[in-house]
Amino acid sequence: MALMTGNEYVESMRKLNLQVYMFGEKIENPVDDPILRPSLNSVKATYDLAGNPEYEELMTTKSPYTGEIVNRFTHIHESTADLVKKVKMQRLCGQKTAACFQRCVGMDAFNAVYSTTFETDEAHGTNYHENFLSFLKYVQEKDLTVDGAMTDPKGDRSLAPHAQADPDLYLHVVERRPDGIVVRGAKAHQTGIINSHEVIVMPTIAMGEDDKDYAVSFAVPTDSEGIFMIVGRQSCDTRKLEGSQIDVGNSQFGGMEALVVFDNVFVPNDRIFLNGEYEFAGVLVERFAGYHRQSYGGCKVGVGDVLIGATAVAAEYNGAQRASHVKDKLIEMTHLNETLYCCGIACSAEGTKTKSGNYMIDLLLANVCKQNVTRFPYEIARLAEDIAGGLMVTAPSEKDLKNPKLGGYIDKYLRGVEDVSTENRLRILRLIENLTLGSAAVGYRTESMHGAGSPQAQRIMIARQGNLPMKKKLAKTIAKIEE
Amino acid sequence: MALMTGNEYVESMRKLNLQVYMFGEKIENPVDDPILRPSLNSVKATYDLAGNPEYEELMTTKSPYTGEIVNRFTHIHESTADLVKKVKMQRLCGQKTAACFQRCVGMDAFNAVYSTTFETDEAHGTNYHENFLSFLKYVQEKDLTVDGAMTDPKGDRSLAPHAQADPDLYLHVVERRPDGIVVRGAKAHQTGIINSHEVIVMPTIAMGEDDKDYAVSFAVPTDSEGIFMIVGRQSCDTRKLEGSQIDVGNSQFGGMEALVVFDNVFVPNDRIFLNGEYEFAGVLVERFAGYHRQSYGGCKVGVGDVLIGATAVAAEYNGAQRASHVKDKLIEMTHLNETLYCCGIACSAEGTKTKSGNYMIDLLLANVCKQNVTRFPYEIARLAEDIAGGLMVTAPSEKDLKNPKLGGYIDKYLRGVEDVSTENRLRILRLIENLTLGSAAVGYRTESMHGAGSPQAQRIMIARQGNLPMKKKLAKTIAKIEE
Amino acid sequence: MALMTGNEYVESMRKLNLQVYMFGEKIENPVDDPILRPSLNSVKATYDLAGNPEYEELMTTKSPYTGEIVNRFTHIHESTADLVKKVKMQRLCGQKTAACFQRCVGMDAFNAVYSTTFETDEAHGTNYHENFLSFLKYVQEKDLTVDGAMTDPKGDRSLAPHAQADPDLYLHVVERRPDGIVVRGAKAHQTGIINSHEVIVMPTIAMGEDDKDYAVSFAVPTDSEGIFMIVGRQSCDTRKLEGSQIDVGNSQFGGMEALVVFDNVFVPNDRIFLNGEYEFAGVLVERFAGYHRQSYGGCKVGVGDVLIGATAVAAEYNGAQRASHVKDKLIEMTHLNETLYCCGIACSAEGTKTKSGNYMIDLLLANVCKQNVTRFPYEIARLAEDIAGGLMVTAPSEKDLKNPKLGGYIDKYLRGVEDVSTENRLRILRLIENLTLGSAAVGYRTESMHGAGSPQAQRIMIARQGNLPMKKKLAKTIAKIEE
Amino acid sequence: MALMTGNEYVESMRKLNLQVYMFGEKIENPVDDPILRPSLNSVKATYDLAGNPEYEELMTTKSPYTGEIVNRFTHIHESTADLVKKVKMQRLCGQKTAACFQRCVGMDAFNAVYSTTFETDEAHGTNYHENFLSFLKYVQEKDLTVDGAMTDPKGDRSLAPHAQADPDLYLHVVERRPDGIVVRGAKAHQTGIINSHEVIVMPTIAMGEDDKDYAVSFAVPTDSEGIFMIVGRQSCDTRKLEGSQIDVGNSQFGGMEALVVFDNVFVPNDRIFLNGEYEFAGVLVERFAGYHRQSYGGCKVGVGDVLIGATAVAAEYNGAQRASHVKDKLIEMTHLNETLYCCGIACSAEGTKTKSGNYMIDLLLANVCKQNVTRFPYEIARLAEDIAGGLMVTAPSEKDLKNPKLGGYIDKYLRGVEDVSTENRLRILRLIENLTLGSAAVGYRTESMHGAGSPQAQRIMIARQGNLPMKKKLAKTIAKIEE
Repeated sequence: MALMTGNEYVESMRKLNLQVYMFGEKIENPVDDPILRPSLNSVKATYDLAGNPEYEELMTTKSPYTGEIVNRFTHIHESTADLVKKVKMQRLCGQKTAACFQRCVGMDAFNAVYSTTFETDEAHGTNYHENFLSFLKYVQEKDLTVDGAMTDPKGDRSLAPHAQADPDLYLHVVERRPDGIVVRGAKAHQTGIINSHEVIVMPTIAMGEDDKDYAVSFAVPTDSEGIFMIVGRQSCDTRKLEGSQIDVGNSQFGGMEALVVFDNVFVPNDRIFLNGEYEFAGVLVERFAGYHRQSYGGCKVGVGDVLIGATAVAAEYNGAQRASHVKDKLIEMTHLNETLYCCGIACSAEGTKTKSGNYMIDLLLANVCKQNVTRFPYEIARLAEDIAGGLMVTAPSEKDLKNPKLGGYIDKYLRGVEDVSTENRLRILRLIENLTLGSAAVGYRTESMHGAGSPQAQRIMIARQGNLPMKKKLAKTIAKIEE
Repeated sequence: MALMTGNEYVESMRKLNLQVYMFGEKIENPVDDPILRPSLNSVKATYDLAGNPEYEELMTTKSPYTGEIVNRFTHIHESTADLVKKVKMQRLCGQKTAACFQRCVGMDAFNAVYSTTFETDEAHGTNYHENFLSFLKYVQEKDLTVDGAMTDPKGDRSLAPHAQADPDLYLHVVERRPDGIVVRGAKAHQTGIINSHEVIVMPTIAMGEDDKDYAVSFAVPTDSEGIFMIVGRQSCDTRKLEGSQIDVGNSQFGGMEALVVFDNVFVPNDRIFLNGEYEFAGVLVERFAGYHRQSYGGCKVGVGDVLIGATAVAAEYNGAQRASHVKDKLIEMTHLNETLYCCGIACSAEGTKTKSGNYMIDLLLANVCKQNVTRFPYEIARLAEDIAGGLMVTAPSEKDLKNPKLGGYIDKYLRGVEDVSTENRLRILRLIENLTLGSAAVGYRTESMHGAGSPQAQRIMIARQGNLPMKKKLAKTIAKIEE
Repeated sequence: MALMTGNEYVESMRKLNLQVYMFGEKIENPVDDPILRPSLNSVKATYDLAGNPEYEELMTTKSPYTGEIVNRFTHIHESTADLVKKVKMQRLCGQKTAACFQRCVGMDAFNAVYSTTFETDEAHGTNYHENFLSFLKYVQEKDLTVDGAMTDPKGDRSLAPHAQADPDLYLHVVERRPDGIVVRGAKAHQTGIINSHEVIVMPTIAMGEDDKDYAVSFAVPTDSEGIFMIVGRQSCDTRKLEGSQIDVGNSQFGGMEALVVFDNVFVPNDRIFLNGEYEFAGVLVERFAGYHRQSYGGCKVGVGDVLIGATAVAAEYNGAQRASHVKDKLIEMTHLNETLYCCGIACSAEGTKTKSGNYMIDLLLANVCKQNVTRFPYEIARLAEDIAGGLMVTAPSEKDLKNPKLGGYIDKYLRGVEDVSTENRLRILRLIENLTLGSAAVGYRTESMHGAGSPQAQRIMIARQGNLPMKKKLAKTIAKIEE
Repeated sequence: MALMTGNEYVESMRKLNLQVYMFGEKIENPVDDPILRPSLNSVKATYDLAGNPEYEELMTTKSPYTGEIVNRFTHIHESTADLVKKVKMQRLCGQKTAACFQRCVGMDAFNAVYSTTFETDEAHGTNYHENFLSFLKYVQEKDLTVDGAMTDPKGDRSLAPHAQADPDLYLHVVERRPDGIVVRGAKAHQTGIINSHEVIVMPTIAMGEDDKDYAVSFAVPTDSEGIFMIVGRQSCDTRKLEGSQIDVGNSQFGGMEALVVFDNVFVPNDRIFLNGEYEFAGVLVERFAGYHRQSYGGCKVGVGDVLIGATAVAAEYNGAQRASHVKDKLIEMTHLNETLYCCGIACSAEGTKTKSGNYMIDLLLANVCKQNVTRFPYEIARLAEDIAGGLMVTAPSEKDLKNPKLGGYIDKYLRGVEDVSTENRLRILRLIENLTLGSAAVGYRTESMHGAGSPQAQRIMIARQGNLPMKKKLAKTIAKIEE
């Protein structure tokens, strides 16, 4: 089957029987829900862009598994060039959506599971890699969107999975049957789950023998029996219900997150990728996190491009674009954004081949990448707010602007430079608001902080990968210290 | 008349005939409007706290004009001790409301107009100071809330007021009558205007002779004929309509801003404080801005205290309060917050007496104070988001939590440490969301950036006040440079 | 006796029989040693400035103990106004010397010992306060410079004083005699010791009962038998031997530090201020550190003024003073420097009376002050290096400039703007080098980091003084959390 | 001829007849001068490492011009892989020398001149590229060290070269002869000039037609008639004369800079690479600067590795290595250092082929790289000073340590953990001093700031390369703004 078009993707999502809840109610038609639709559109963009010849080199590639052209989001990286293209594709998608397009977690899960199943099989004689290859081919042939689900609720963070008061606070196997396993638990903060056909579940931390039942990885359709999702609230979420294109800032695209409950879900044997081989839980986590920390050096850079552009437009509309401090702040925003991109590119270019044959990013540099992502978008956002001016948060609503009595006053008094309409000025300010305080700030700020692991997780990896003993030796040699 | 109680204040506001618009409609009863009420409550808190014996030393003082105890928000500073108490009062109000309590602009306008009218009279033989003293006594006797209105829309920022395409882009005198003047124009971003009895209007920049008609200052009741207000949108504003105490984070208090239009408003002679003496426009602006930049070293510190506290609670509820990086981040947040406080205290303690007898803050240090306020709250917010964790932006709504089917799952899976209810965990996370992304973020972040002047305005003042020639001389002396 | 003049001070130092070592040799005449003399000159400046009517309000005050005018460096603070004046005096001295003038440690020790002896006597019936008052009067009458000695070598930092392998790694009582005690140990990093008449020794950490013999405080003349000093190396120290006024940057003033060994030194009973009352060791340390952390909000600000001035001069000499980025960096340097000053002023203005009657700074704010001092001078120095340009570290020596063959080429090629001599350009660059890399960088950078306690020491105090429980309560009230 | 060994290199330098001045005197034997020798040793290391099989992949490559193995420092980059290896070679050399090894400027000049001469010839029918290829082969065959000289003294920065009061403030052609040209002027801050066999001169800014005579590039031997060098002073330079291995911190390696005067130097026709084709002056500058800004993402990272290692050793010797704040600061240092490395790698991996066939780095990312280098080493140095402790700048001299009377006291009192000798503790602290304040700080700090162009130069390039129009378009599309 060829690649799906964006519209085919949307239609394919309609056919799923997802259990989605929001504001205490079941959403019968998530595809057309005004709060959820922008997040679907972001995923749709990954299909539309793949179908656009201008972007085909970044968005698509030929699969050795199917022999066909596939969307890069379903690809197993075969070289460092592939890793670099992944980052560029993510920047592109960020530029086109100014939002989280959600399809990266699946791609990152794919590549982590690929090499980990290979090594698990080697060590245990299992056949997880073959299971995964079949699943991979299925996904590539159907051009599916797959969510990667890692983060368990975790309860009391000082206790191991098996030691929690409630055994379900980490997802685990509750029954082993001849034809498969039954699992129970939940995954929190699941980006894009309602816009995905399938979900790959992975453990969330390294595990010991006592956590055997928690060392489980598999893939199931998102509308499997027992799975349901509760959509998380985003800042300004209900503004999307008002029907105002201006006030939402980004009327077309968005992101979403949900709490996904696995309430005794059956997984058939051929969809299992890890099942009790606990020493590989940590390997899988580290690799997925590594890939996903690389990802942020692409997607957030693309969103940053939009924010920088919006800020430059706002400066122009204010008549302030020639002020030296404004120019300097735009340079600083660009500098910070490109520093993130450097990190994304570097950990890709320095990638290495795994035993299984696919390519892994450089772990140290990928963690350095993500650590910077927990900082610079905040500063970029701060500078955007600086240049945009206070009107960004004090402007009247579109309803006021369109009101016969009030509209004239607003048009008169909130005009910046004479030749730009007040409406356009408000549009660009609302976009900046959306990215710095509104629903997209959830993705651009908080997700930059916690997605792919919170800052401290990266610091632990940097400490581990930084090779301090080698550096100490260098210093002792220079200082001519003999011990 | 004695000080008003909070409730008396609320009732007094009901009696006004304010012209308030929001979402394209006239709000007939702003006092009880669910979106606006929290902002009224913040002002109400300045009355309630003044009536609480525990805080009377900070909140009240004796007026030499009325001989009675007055609320410090209506006070003319008589010493540096008064300036310091002002900052402490603001920190207290910030701690109690976690929001902008709006009453500072009036106080700062009072003190700036007090000394400026005195000096204008001296130079021009006018009687503005007497006009102002009458108004002051009236306000103190009635214990009124007065808004200070400075920021004009400004249009094209490269043009002076009189040179704008539309002459109304700065508020100006359009008619001079025997009994007073008629003014037209607008003031943007007006904090607290709908919760004020009176408004003092001031010019927004230094002016030359051609801007004579724009050099105008006066006070009028907020329900004067010709005044109307269009409320600005805040992030998450309509969440207050849902009736959820949890989801709004801060269900009791908030802030508000509005565009205020002066559509041919009549000002009687005895309410005029400046009328064409253009060389005093800059003086008035500089003094008001100076006082108001001091203010931010109090109010935002108080809000910071709440955010630091909320973050510490969130860490405890997550079971992470003993992690060294968490402790260190809380120290950093405290350090930054107290640095702001140092600046607020220092510019107060170093205040000096004006010709008119009231006390002015140290201009250099007040600008340094505000400049730090444009930075540190953003970093404090970033650290709060770091410690709070992603759940802050992905948690389900209160409606989900209270739903019979979903509630149990949420309670089960989103619990942190065992002995804290999931509801309480969500409450504290929603408060952090409110302060970093939600409606209070407008006050804690964007207002910290632009209130009392944008960052560049402070840098210009720091350059002017920094006495570089003296410093160059010091350096040349040390380097033994003779020229 | 009246205040000493600077010259009288110098002569008084000649009369001491100090045991000073440097580069493996005994320095017979430290007063005239070219490496050490600049540090003496800095102390001398504290006498000269006190004799200058222009500065008498800051530099001097009337002592209630002698009834005479005394140098403020020997004063016991009687009010918050005194605390504020202390900071201003320190800024002044920093401006005039661009170096560490060394006399603060004694002043800070005085005020800490004053209140601690009072409370120790109250608890133990000792008469340390009287001992101290006698010493105080003696110092004030003679106008002496007193060093405050706190920092023990500390050996293995994970062990208490009594548990060290070598018992002398903390200074302690080794013999108790009817007429006094004998002490042994050392104090490291002693600023100004070779330029002081007397030294007050204090313990360096809080102690337990096992450390009883280490809980000792006293004052002795610096040339007491058994005391000797080994001068520490500073960056570029021997450049002072070359006889070049230009190359040293600051030819007149400097600082110095030494390791001071107390090799069985006898202390008579009436000079003892603590002797075994171990629970007051921590009190004394905390108070001294508090005062000394305040001090850095004055002295380093003064040095910063010189560095900012030098940078502005360098920009002018380069013809770059009108570049917007240069102006902006000078503003940033000023902003950071004044933020430090704000902290110094604030912790003073918020001081409180101790039981003994003298005034103590606000502990939280003083620690915040010093914490900023461990950061901002580094950034100010970085910006100075930015504006100064690379010539600061690649310029030829004065000998080259004065060489008949080379001088012409240097004059020709290293000229900036036409009307400034190359020599003056080099003078200002060498001053910047001196402050950022040279001997004064030891004071402006490393001492800013570690003097009065390393950064982590302040963070511990900020954690202790930050009142997190109160802040958590504020947050819970706003979030309506009931537990 | 094969690659030279380090010793052969040293002997080859002895044969030159360089005119070197220092402290007003001619240095007859620069090779063995104690102040200069460490800088020679750093260049020698680039020969020694090339001869070490462990590093041959990074240090050497096969030249298509000679068909032989050459040192990579003389190589023309043939691929992005070459660009990446260049950065890795530089990191290696930085790790091994903890200093500036000076040979990069020549390599960067080579690659910039290579492509620029090609394009100049294309436009003007000149034969500069052939000239350069001959020179290139000569250098590769002889394995020479070549300096790249760009920075003119520049005089009044607001005037173009031809408009300066003194026409020599930029190097220019003063005579055109049939066999060649005569040039006059100077190049400032020349790194490694005294350790180079040849020097490539390039213009320092973009030029117009009036600057024709200044648009000149060529190569000559460093001991050509008319060339002489005045060595610049470094912090602590004369400490190297004391014969102390400990006190200098890094006794083997160093850097150096000089003012190089070209006093009517003759350049034969076949050594000319640009001569009046002014529109290519800017091209050459931009390319050289681009390559050299990439370089800093390698060399300074290697030096940073040593400083991080030294800091970790110091922490261990202090017994503080397990303190959480110490571990966290080492992580931060590593994070910042690796961020620089990411930038170095990224601008290399994103390199592109020039018309001439060699590879150019990505200009935007290389400027981002260098901009970070003007910041992070300062913060790394600050953290190193934090962990090292004050002893780094207050420790006695080696002469004191070796003195029979004093040595015992120093050994006793300045010991950290029991099993490490005080001497070793001092050695590591002196290395940190060397890198943060001493002679290597000139390279690690000030050169990081100004080498390859001052910060503002990069910001201008970032503004030019940042493609703001494209970003504005992205934002307008998202905000649905139609104009």
